[in-house]
Amino acid sequence: MNPLIRNISELDRVIHEPGRLMIVSLLSAVEAADFLYLQHETGLNKGTLSSHLSKLEEAGYVEIAKSFRGKVPQTVLKLTPTGAEAFEQYRRKLKAAL
Amino acid sequence: MNPLIRNISELDRVIHEPGRLMIVSLLSAVEAADFLYLQHETGLNKGTLSSHLSKLEEAGYVEIAKSFRGKVPQTVLKLTPTGAEAFEQYRRKLKAAL
Repeated sequence: MNPLIRNISELDRVIHEPGRLMIVSLLSAVEAADFLYLQHETGLNKGTLSSHLSKLEEAGYVEIAKSFRGKVPQTVLKLTPTGAEAFEQYRRKLKAAL
Repeated sequence: MNPLIRNISELDRVIHEPGRLMIVSLLSAVEAADFLYLQHETGLNKGTLSSHLSKLEEAGYVEIAKSFRGKVPQTVLKLTPTGAEAFEQYRRKLKAAL
C-alpha cells in the first residue's frame, strides 16, 4: 500500500463522518459552544446533532455539560485534549493524502 | 453557516467514504487499473471492493469493463471525466475546509 493510500485507510472514522467533522471543526476554533450554536452553524437537526455528539463523547473527543441558565436548560460542548489531538492527526493524514 | 463548514456539508458522500476515497485517488493517478491491483493497493476484500465499485459506477464516476486475457477474466476500472471532475471538486472543498 502506498503511503498516501495508507493515510486514507487510517483516517479516524469517528471524525471523518461529515456531520461530526463539522462539529469537531467548529469546536476546535472555540473554547466551548452551546448546542443551539452548533445546531445553527451545522444545519443539522436536533436528533442528528445529539447522536453525533454522543458518538464523539463515547470516543472521549467531546465533553458535554448540561446546566441551567436561569430556568433555561443549556448544553455546553467542548473539545477534549484527546479530541483536539485526534482532529490534528486526522487533518495531518488527510492533507497528506490530498 | 460559515464557508468552511459549508464546504464540509457539501462534500460528495459517494467519494468521501474512505474505501471509495482510496479507489478514486488511485484511479485518478492512472489511465486504468485492474481489480486485483486495486484490491492489493487498498487492502479491501473482494466483496467490499466490488460494492464500492458498483456505487461509484452508479454515480457515473467509474467505468467497469470486464474482459478476458486469454482464458483469465479481467475487470478493468477507469475514472470517467465526471468522476475526475467530482474528485477535483471534492479535493477543493476539503482542502478549503482543512
